[in-house]
Amino acid sequence: MTVKIGLVGTGTVGGGCLDIYNKHKDDFKRHYGVDIELVRVCSLDKAEAEAHGVGHLFTNDFNEIINDPDIDLVIELIGGTGVAHAIVTGALKAGKYVVTANKALMATAGEEIFDLADEAGVEIAFEASVGGGIPIIDPMKHSLISNEISSVLGIVNGTTNYMLTRMDKEGIPYDEVLADAQAKGFAEADPTADVDGFDAAAKIAILASIAFNSRVVLSDVSTEGIRNVQPIDLKAAHDMGYVVKLLAIAHRTDEGVDVRVHPTMIPDTHQLAHVNGVDNAIYVTGDAVGETMFFGAGAGAGPAASAVMGDVLEVSRRIMQGVPPLVGCTCTDKLPIVPMDNLETCYYLRLVVPDRVGVLAAAAKVFSENDVSLRSVIQEGTRARDAVNLIFVTHAAREKNIRKALEDLAAAEDMLIGEPTVIRVED
Amino acid sequence: MTVKIGLVGTGTVGGGCLDIYNKHKDDFKRHYGVDIELVRVCSLDKAEAEAHGVGHLFTNDFNEIINDPDIDLVIELIGGTGVAHAIVTGALKAGKYVVTANKALMATAGEEIFDLADEAGVEIAFEASVGGGIPIIDPMKHSLISNEISSVLGIVNGTTNYMLTRMDKEGIPYDEVLADAQAKGFAEADPTADVDGFDAAAKIAILASIAFNSRVVLSDVSTEGIRNVQPIDLKAAHDMGYVVKLLAIAHRTDEGVDVRVHPTMIPDTHQLAHVNGVDNAIYVTGDAVGETMFFGAGAGAGPAASAVMGDVLEVSRRIMQGVPPLVGCTCTDKLPIVPMDNLETCYYLRLVVPDRVGVLAAAAKVFSENDVSLRSVIQEGTRARDAVNLIFVTHAAREKNIRKALEDLAAAEDMLIGEPTVIRVED
Repeated sequence: MTVKIGLVGTGTVGGGCLDIYNKHKDDFKRHYGVDIELVRVCSLDKAEAEAHGVGHLFTNDFNEIINDPDIDLVIELIGGTGVAHAIVTGALKAGKYVVTANKALMATAGEEIFDLADEAGVEIAFEASVGGGIPIIDPMKHSLISNEISSVLGIVNGTTNYMLTRMDKEGIPYDEVLADAQAKGFAEADPTADVDGFDAAAKIAILASIAFNSRVVLSDVSTEGIRNVQPIDLKAAHDMGYVVKLLAIAHRTDEGVDVRVHPTMIPDTHQLAHVNGVDNAIYVTGDAVGETMFFGAGAGAGPAASAVMGDVLEVSRRIMQGVPPLVGCTCTDKLPIVPMDNLETCYYLRLVVPDRVGVLAAAAKVFSENDVSLRSVIQEGTRARDAVNLIFVTHAAREKNIRKALEDLAAAEDMLIGEPTVIRVED
Repeated sequence: MTVKIGLVGTGTVGGGCLDIYNKHKDDFKRHYGVDIELVRVCSLDKAEAEAHGVGHLFTNDFNEIINDPDIDLVIELIGGTGVAHAIVTGALKAGKYVVTANKALMATAGEEIFDLADEAGVEIAFEASVGGGIPIIDPMKHSLISNEISSVLGIVNGTTNYMLTRMDKEGIPYDEVLADAQAKGFAEADPTADVDGFDAAAKIAILASIAFNSRVVLSDVSTEGIRNVQPIDLKAAHDMGYVVKLLAIAHRTDEGVDVRVHPTMIPDTHQLAHVNGVDNAIYVTGDAVGETMFFGAGAGAGPAASAVMGDVLEVSRRIMQGVPPLVGCTCTDKLPIVPMDNLETCYYLRLVVPDRVGVLAAAAKVFSENDVSLRSVIQEGTRARDAVNLIFVTHAAREKNIRKALEDLAAAEDMLIGEPTVIRVED
């Protein structure tokens, strides 16, 4: 048989999929006996379909794909949780297999989607939702399942890693580096999903769900982005032997799942410190395998399309052989989410304060009153003549106490100028 | 149903598998619905089986496993190509699924084994044969199949990487560091398979076969080990901005498959330069995904057992659902092996020569006569008073010409003392 495919979305990733399909369709048949045929392509822009030689398959109505009884498999590549939700759930309800790159959808509606796939006796595959082309979901759902996974963490957002890398290496201020990332197409016009950490949060929710066999959704993830990080913070990190990365972190603890995204100082000798630009790297630690790491390009047409088409081939292989879904939802346990307040770690805190006598002492007093013990304080000038940076590094402290101290500082009259920069230190 | 398993081999890896089985058997059922039961354990040493609480399942006759009609799946962990060959082929002929960690067997008898599995309608799985617990075979056989892979290369032998790391960081001579590796259990009493590169060669043969969809066997791999590498070479590499690693390399070229194992200088800024000790790292480059890297512990009870038991669970999942083998042999093409003579690269060559006037000039002349252009020559003392090291670095040269020059030098009277050290330079 030939597996008949409908593709929705002909942007960057969709275009990459069409390229792979056009180039390697015959190879798939020869090497793996997998015979796929694209029969319908949906997007808002016919020119995109035509540019990849599939103009004759074009429709702008996704219903023509999900309602077409000939189609076995639907690829959803438009992203987001609106129309994409209708397409994915509609296709599953119509008994079609689905491959998606949609992290936001999987991190918010994963349970509903798995349930629908289960009811219909079909599969949902989403390797491309995390880490671009890096095989990470498949290894975690297959090769590593003999382990109890204790943590999964890493750099999963290429945009912010690109920005941090350039701020670090070239000292370019945040606003400029963001504008540059937007000009290069690495960041969207509205950069919120990337710079505020939500993209990374969706990805770590997906990875944590698989790693710990327990559903973690986007809203479970404590998320902070990189808006308050400036070259001065990266330089200060260097001086202490650290590098700043936006890490997505999930730990299995005795209390439950500790899952968060935030700028993090890691030792400059750590492998992750050398993952630069739009590259991604994900560490998985298991009780038998120890520490493993998966590295590669986290974004881009080719890498993401590699993952999408890998899923398409895997699923098609099983459709052709009439095999029922082998792996569905694996969230069999119900682990609680550990409140962020319970976190205990060292903190780097940069406050911009008025340049006058007594401010440093007053700030130090607030930390002391909140049981936050300081390891070092440095005072450095800012571009403004009447403001200075106070850079504090704490000993191990409770998140709750840090939050309270920062609230007290914000409430104090004539103390903080703008938002403080908070970077957690992981050794 | 319950999948009934027979295990052959209770050494390091077999013991690791028993630990995982004892610890997580119930988790496998709860999380994945995979119900496995160990029903027979074979080895030469009953005490090993008893130590893991499975003395009551012991036999010292593997025929009791491969001839037992109740057993669905056989795990072979004794290694080598003798008895292991009989066990694996015997089990397949008896219609049993097989999981093995045996790289030597897969790299020499892979085709025969796949044919037998195919005839019997069962599967052979061998993730643990390469890279310890690092998922690499599964990602290459599944996630990455939408790519044409152009190269697969990396550090795949933990023993030699441990030795090179210690020679590099601590300047310990080869013989001492080998004795240390043997004392620590990282190297066998007969270290040939590791230090002469055969273990790495078997692994790259397996990886190349999968990557290029073309059978590559052990004898296809041009193999050189690290016996002639000394701390002086590692120091010279550092001075030039390089690190020496035993790399296993396979490239798809227009002429066919270029596959080899040899000590290699790589820039000290490359990620692989920071893979130290018994860790392994494997790079896979595909036309869509770009460069991906897989990292982890390359050896040890836990990591190897993680991979073996991962395979056991995957295969068991399909046995339980009555699913026919989904992926068999994928070597559908017949690419030629590129002769090593055709290689063109830069070379680091260290010759030990008598300490007398004119030797450097005479050696340089031999290179010149063989069309080998020199980039630099350094003369350094040795421990012996009457011998010196001549360290040559060439411009890009042909392997054939280098070989001829070294032959000429060896044939010249009173020139070479001992074997030259040859390290290829990859930029």
